[in-house]
Amino acid sequence: MRTVDLNSDLGESFGAWRMGDDEAMFPLITSANLACGFHAGDPATMLEACRSAAQHGVAIGAHPSYRDLAGFGRRDMEVAAEQLHADVLYQVSALVGIAAHAGATVRYLKPHGALYNRIAVDLEVAEVVADVARGLGLPVLGLPGSAIETACRQARIGFVTEAFADRGYLADGTLAPRGLAGSLITDEAEVAARAVRMVVEGVVVAVDGTELAVHPASLCVHGDTPGAVAIARAVRAALDGAGVEVAAFA
Amino acid sequence: MRTVDLNSDLGESFGAWRMGDDEAMFPLITSANLACGFHAGDPATMLEACRSAAQHGVAIGAHPSYRDLAGFGRRDMEVAAEQLHADVLYQVSALVGIAAHAGATVRYLKPHGALYNRIAVDLEVAEVVADVARGLGLPVLGLPGSAIETACRQARIGFVTEAFADRGYLADGTLAPRGLAGSLITDEAEVAARAVRMVVEGVVVAVDGTELAVHPASLCVHGDTPGAVAIARAVRAALDGAGVEVAAFA
Amino acid sequence: MRTVDLNSDLGESFGAWRMGDDEAMFPLITSANLACGFHAGDPATMLEACRSAAQHGVAIGAHPSYRDLAGFGRRDMEVAAEQLHADVLYQVSALVGIAAHAGATVRYLKPHGALYNRIAVDLEVAEVVADVARGLGLPVLGLPGSAIETACRQARIGFVTEAFADRGYLADGTLAPRGLAGSLITDEAEVAARAVRMVVEGVVVAVDGTELAVHPASLCVHGDTPGAVAIARAVRAALDGAGVEVAAFA
Amino acid sequence: MRTVDLNSDLGESFGAWRMGDDEAMFPLITSANLACGFHAGDPATMLEACRSAAQHGVAIGAHPSYRDLAGFGRRDMEVAAEQLHADVLYQVSALVGIAAHAGATVRYLKPHGALYNRIAVDLEVAEVVADVARGLGLPVLGLPGSAIETACRQARIGFVTEAFADRGYLADGTLAPRGLAGSLITDEAEVAARAVRMVVEGVVVAVDGTELAVHPASLCVHGDTPGAVAIARAVRAALDGAGVEVAAFA
Repeated sequence: MRTVDLNSDLGESFGAWRMGDDEAMFPLITSANLACGFHAGDPATMLEACRSAAQHGVAIGAHPSYRDLAGFGRRDMEVAAEQLHADVLYQVSALVGIAAHAGATVRYLKPHGALYNRIAVDLEVAEVVADVARGLGLPVLGLPGSAIETACRQARIGFVTEAFADRGYLADGTLAPRGLAGSLITDEAEVAARAVRMVVEGVVVAVDGTELAVHPASLCVHGDTPGAVAIARAVRAALDGAGVEVAAFA
Repeated sequence: MRTVDLNSDLGESFGAWRMGDDEAMFPLITSANLACGFHAGDPATMLEACRSAAQHGVAIGAHPSYRDLAGFGRRDMEVAAEQLHADVLYQVSALVGIAAHAGATVRYLKPHGALYNRIAVDLEVAEVVADVARGLGLPVLGLPGSAIETACRQARIGFVTEAFADRGYLADGTLAPRGLAGSLITDEAEVAARAVRMVVEGVVVAVDGTELAVHPASLCVHGDTPGAVAIARAVRAALDGAGVEVAAFA
Repeated sequence: MRTVDLNSDLGESFGAWRMGDDEAMFPLITSANLACGFHAGDPATMLEACRSAAQHGVAIGAHPSYRDLAGFGRRDMEVAAEQLHADVLYQVSALVGIAAHAGATVRYLKPHGALYNRIAVDLEVAEVVADVARGLGLPVLGLPGSAIETACRQARIGFVTEAFADRGYLADGTLAPRGLAGSLITDEAEVAARAVRMVVEGVVVAVDGTELAVHPASLCVHGDTPGAVAIARAVRAALDGAGVEVAAFA
Repeated sequence: MRTVDLNSDLGESFGAWRMGDDEAMFPLITSANLACGFHAGDPATMLEACRSAAQHGVAIGAHPSYRDLAGFGRRDMEVAAEQLHADVLYQVSALVGIAAHAGATVRYLKPHGALYNRIAVDLEVAEVVADVARGLGLPVLGLPGSAIETACRQARIGFVTEAFADRGYLADGTLAPRGLAGSLITDEAEVAARAVRMVVEGVVVAVDGTELAVHPASLCVHGDTPGAVAIARAVRAALDGAGVEVAAFA
C-alpha cells in the first residue's frame, strides 16, 4: 500500500489577525508546519495550534522564518550565519517547549517562505538550518535536489522530500516560477488527480509535457484561502479513494 | 559557613545595542537572569550569554518579560492570563533550547521589570507565572512575602527569596519607593557592608532605623552602569572577606 | 435638516493579514479612523486606505494607539507622558505625510482601543493626546463627558462627540460594560432604529429603560465582521430613509 | 572661501538602549541624519534629537531604513517597490511632524545602512527613494556616481555628494571594501588631514596611491564610539584651522 504525508502551514494568525482556516485543515492533514513567532504565530496561537494538532493526531513541525512580521517572512534577507543560527534555534526551541506543554512533540523542521526558498539554493544558509536540526535531532522537510537536502546528507540528519500538487514543474524538476503559465493549478479535480499520480505512479507532468519521476514522502497543501481548503479536501478525498494511506512520515 | 547566591540581570543587549558589561559581571556572580527576547536579548545575545554562563560556572535563570522592546519591559501592561501564560512559556522555552545548545541548563525563573513588580502584588498574574514554572519544573526567584511566593507555595514549586543590598527598605520589609530619600544606596562600601550584614546577621536597617530580619538565599546586584559594576565587585569582595560562601542556590 | 457623521475604524490590516472589509465600508461612511502602524496599519496599508478615502470623499482621521501590535492596541499600558506624547505625534505625523501623498488631509484625531478607553477617564493621559492634537490643529473625536472632552476644552481645541448605536448605555450615560445583558446589540433593524432616534430625537434608551438625551455629531459603526458590515449598511440606509444628511463633521 | 558640511548619524538610541554620544557630536557637526524608528530612533529619541539639532543650529536630515530593528537596518532585504515607497514615506513624514513640533524643519533625506548601500547600485530601488524625496521637496545626500544620484537627476531633485575622510578609496572612486588593508583609517591626524585635502584641494589619495578628484559638499563623520568622536573633533578643528567654513549645505 502506498503511503504519503499531507503537510500544511498552520498557526499563522497573529494577535487579532486571523490567517487561514486551521479548524478546517487539521482534520485533512497529517503534519502541521507551525509558525514560531518571527513571521506569524504569537505564543497563544502556537499553544492553541499545538493543542489542535495533538487532538487530531497531527504531527507538529517547526516552521521558523526570518524575523519579518511586516513581510510575513516572504522577503529575502541577508542574515549573518551566526545570527540566523540563533534565530532558528530560538524559534524551534520555543515551539518545542510549547508543544510539550500541550502534551505533544515537535517532529521535524520546515523553514518558511523566503528562508525556505533560500535554503533550496544556498548551501551556506542551508548548513545553518541543518546544524540547528542536527542539534535538536529533527529531520528537515524540503524539496528534492535542493541545497538543504545536501546539507542534511552532510550533517547525517533525516531529510524528507515534499512535492506540490498545485504547482507546475519545469522539465528539470524545479517549480515553475509564479507568473509563468501553468505555474499554479487551481482546479480542484486536476490538483487531486496530480496528487494521486505523484504518489501512485511516481510521475508528474511538467509544464512542457515532460513526464518527471517524483517520489514525495509528503505533499504540501495550502489552507489560507477558501479555495485552498476546498483543494486540500479534494486531494485528501482522492488519495483516500485511490487507496493511498495518508499518514505522518515520522 | 554562611552561603549566599549573587544574581544579576544579564544578556540585555539587543542587536547593535549594548546594555551593561556582561564580561565584567560574569566572574562576580553565581546566577545570571538572562533576557529572553521580549524586553531585550535577541537570540544571538542569548546564545552568547548562555555560553559565558557555562564558561564561568554561573547558573542560568530565565528572565521573561511583557512583550515591550520599546519600554524595556518596564511598563505595566494588562495582558490576559492565557496570553501571558503563553508569552512566558514561549520565552522560557526558547532559552531552555538555547542553553541546551550551549551545554547548559536553565535552573530557575525570575520575571523582569514590570512583570516582576506585578507578580509581587497581584496573585492572579503570579499564578500564571507559577504555573509556567511548575510545568517546567523550575523554582522562582522573588521577594519574600510577595504574591508570587504565595503562588509558588500553592503550586508546590520552589521559591527562592532575594534581597537588594543597594535598595532602602521600609519598616514593613518592602522596598522604599524610588525617589524617597534613602531608597537607593550608591556608596560601594555601604552597599557591601549591608550585603554582609544581611547574610551574616540576617539583618537590614530600614530607612527609619528599624532593624529588619532578612534571610535572603540570593542577593541581586546590578551591572548596567560602570558604578553598578564597581558596587557588585565591592559586594563580592566583602562577602568573600567575611567568609561567606558565594554559590548558586540551585 | 438633521446631519450626522458616520465614522469607522479602517486600514487595520498589517502585512499579509487582513482585518475588516474596507472596500464594503468606505461607501457607507463619511469619516475613516485610520490605523497608524502601532496597533495595525503598515505604511502600504495606510497609503491604500488614504487613497480609498480620497476616492470616496471620506474624511480621514488619525487613529493612533499604544505600541502593541501583538495586542492590537487593546491592552492598557503605563506609558510615561513624554513617551506617549512622542508616540502619538509620530503616528499622526506619519499619517499626515501619507495622506498628503494621496492628495488628502488628516481632519481629526481619534485614539484607538485601550488608549481611547484610558483618555475617557484619565485626565493626565487625555491632556497628552489633546496637546498633540492642539499642536497639529486637529479636533478630537470621543465620548461626551469624558476626560478627553475636558482636556480639549482646556486646550481650546475642537471636540466632536460620538455615540454607539450598537452598544447599550447605562442610566448615567456611560457605555454598559461588555458582558452585561444588553451591552451589545446585534439586530440590524434595532441598531438602525436606535441610530435614527439618536440623531432625529436626540434620545437613546438605556438598558434599564431610562431615556437619555444624546446629541452625537458622529455615530461609530464597525466593519470588522460580515455582521458588522450588514449593520453599518442598515444604519446608513435608515438614516438616509429618515431624511438625515450623512456627512463628515469637519 | 571653501565651505563644507559635516554630517553624522544621530538619534540612534532606542528605548533604554543608548547608541553613540549625541551630546558630544551636535556641537561638531552641521547636519544630523536622524533615525526614524525602523532601524533605531523611538519617537521620544527623535523628538529629543530634533530639539538638540534646533538648539545647536544643526540641519535635520531624515535617515530612513529598511524595517529591521534587530539588524539595525544593516541587512539587505528584498522589499517590493510599493511597500518600500510607503515605508520610507512613513518614516520621513513622522520625522517631519516631530521636527515641526520642535520648531525645526527636515532639510534632506539620507537613507541608512543597507538601504543606503542598495540605492548606490540599484537604480530601481533608488528611484523609489528619489520619488519620496521629490514628493516632499527634499534633496538627497549620497555618494557621487551612484544610482541614487542618477535617480535624483532623473526626478529633477537636488542631490548632494558626500565623502568619507575615514574610509579608503579604490582607484575607481568607490569605497574600498571593509576588510581590505587601508579601508578604514583610524588615526585622528590622518583623517583630519584627508578631510582638509578633500575640501581645499579636491583630492583624496586612493589605497593604491592614485590621486582622485573629489568635490564633496558634505563630509560624513561617525560618532558611535569614543574613538569616532575624537576623530570628528579632530576633523572639525582641522577644517576650522584651514579656514574652511563648516556650514550646512542646505
